[in-house]
Amino acid sequence: MDMQISFLDRLFDSGLLIETGVEGLYGRSGEFEGVIAAFERLIDRVGGEDGAEAIRFPPGMNRAFFEKSGYMKSFPQLAGTVHSFCGCELDHMSLLKCMEEGNDWTGEQKATDIVLTPAACYPLYPTIAKRGNLPVSGGLYDLQSYCFRHEPSNDPARQQLFRMREYVCMGTEAKVTEFRQLWMDRGVKMMEDVGLSVEIDVANDPFFGRAGKLLANNQRDQNLKFELLIPVTSDVKKTACMSFNYHQDAFGAKWGLNLEDGAVAHTACVGFGLERIALALFAAHGLDTRLWPENVRKVLWG
Amino acid sequence: MDMQISFLDRLFDSGLLIETGVEGLYGRSGEFEGVIAAFERLIDRVGGEDGAEAIRFPPGMNRAFFEKSGYMKSFPQLAGTVHSFCGCELDHMSLLKCMEEGNDWTGEQKATDIVLTPAACYPLYPTIAKRGNLPVSGGLYDLQSYCFRHEPSNDPARQQLFRMREYVCMGTEAKVTEFRQLWMDRGVKMMEDVGLSVEIDVANDPFFGRAGKLLANNQRDQNLKFELLIPVTSDVKKTACMSFNYHQDAFGAKWGLNLEDGAVAHTACVGFGLERIALALFAAHGLDTRLWPENVRKVLWG
Repeated sequence: MDMQISFLDRLFDSGLLIETGVEGLYGRSGEFEGVIAAFERLIDRVGGEDGAEAIRFPPGMNRAFFEKSGYMKSFPQLAGTVHSFCGCELDHMSLLKCMEEGNDWTGEQKATDIVLTPAACYPLYPTIAKRGNLPVSGGLYDLQSYCFRHEPSNDPARQQLFRMREYVCMGTEAKVTEFRQLWMDRGVKMMEDVGLSVEIDVANDPFFGRAGKLLANNQRDQNLKFELLIPVTSDVKKTACMSFNYHQDAFGAKWGLNLEDGAVAHTACVGFGLERIALALFAAHGLDTRLWPENVRKVLWG
Repeated sequence: MDMQISFLDRLFDSGLLIETGVEGLYGRSGEFEGVIAAFERLIDRVGGEDGAEAIRFPPGMNRAFFEKSGYMKSFPQLAGTVHSFCGCELDHMSLLKCMEEGNDWTGEQKATDIVLTPAACYPLYPTIAKRGNLPVSGGLYDLQSYCFRHEPSNDPARQQLFRMREYVCMGTEAKVTEFRQLWMDRGVKMMEDVGLSVEIDVANDPFFGRAGKLLANNQRDQNLKFELLIPVTSDVKKTACMSFNYHQDAFGAKWGLNLEDGAVAHTACVGFGLERIALALFAAHGLDTRLWPENVRKVLWG
């Protein structure tokens, strides 16, 4: 009898993803990376005329900014702080003894000033605030980085380290809500152009605990977050491959992002989950990119 | 009187690097990233005919493999372990209270299964070992990832999160030492082609503590590590922008990398410090890539 081989196993067998022994932590083959690079070039073409400022932050951010962001209030279970050994030679000998004996040696590690970036735009807000007031016409930024979320899972679309491409808009309410609508329309068109069936739905973030349910309900009621859903591992429970978030003036007020006329900036971000989009393409068109439909290959590789 | 403005300040002022408030942790402008991308394409052209297998690991690796690697013996001060909150709702309330009071909240974080990658090739060895024996002709791999080293510094060439491109060769002693020599020759030629003055010298890793001095001396005496040095912040104290490492059969024995004829594989790796190379180019040719010498621009952008 045929075993039902899971999508993750098929990705491992094909070599597109490479096991590391940790759930949600995978190597990528050159072919997998080629799909991500091709989709990023598509994003560049679609968004390129908008004049966004490209900034690339590394996969870690200043812990002080992370603390101020409020992330530990909302998603404490997902955050990753970076810790290091800060001892002397004697401490080092104890550490090695502890490791040799197979005991937990990590308790002596001390938190550094760095936290893994939870979403590509987190380091942006304090960076822009430091520059001073924004012009009334606002600001537009193009970001990409590896992001970390501590949620081990055997769903290949839920990885602990994954890349997020983002555009962030800051300005008047009218400007940033128009920006969000523009990218919702563009996102649907882009996915259709690469042969993916999509729907857009209102959504909420996975806020922690019972108190988080109120935050989630509030977010849904106010239509602050939309997601673009595509089948990856299931046609029923689809995967969010893009998100469209309107922060009202909450981030502007928190970080001191002001327009030249004195108004607090509204902000919105649109994010592409690059691994999820690549996985959606492999799920829809098969694991060999050479056999993908000609029209899809043309959009991605010209 | 003119102040001597440091290279790091000039990089901040030009916007090529972006301050984050943490030493050695910087954002990069689109122009900075364009130089890295161009240099990577040059690497692709020079190494492309060799048929290396491209693998891209995320910036974190399995902690069990990290522990086995022996990194904590040699460089405990540089490692970064990833820790997360693993508590319940009550723990969360305590955590938030702790943060509100401005106290250290990080002590309650627990180590996850993930450690930040210290060098791009660390996740490779266990991955290849798992595949079984290597052909006698060996294996060749093309890697790139963000790497972490906890060494806060105001030297822009010493960043805590930086990218390393690597080729790793596994096989007979003759094969891997030939590979290393090939890339030493290629590296010198590549740097000369982009107008950088280079020298190659024997080197050693920054092993921890007094016992580490023995390891360092041994590494130098056996010519196991060479570095390609280029002026970045100083013409006197040059910066290692490439390294060429021969591991003998130490990694082969540790990870169980065997050739089909039963011999333990020898291994060698050549690494490009991508941020350092970009900084060397900016230091040599100025902060505006449009004004770089025509022959250098031609090599990088065609």
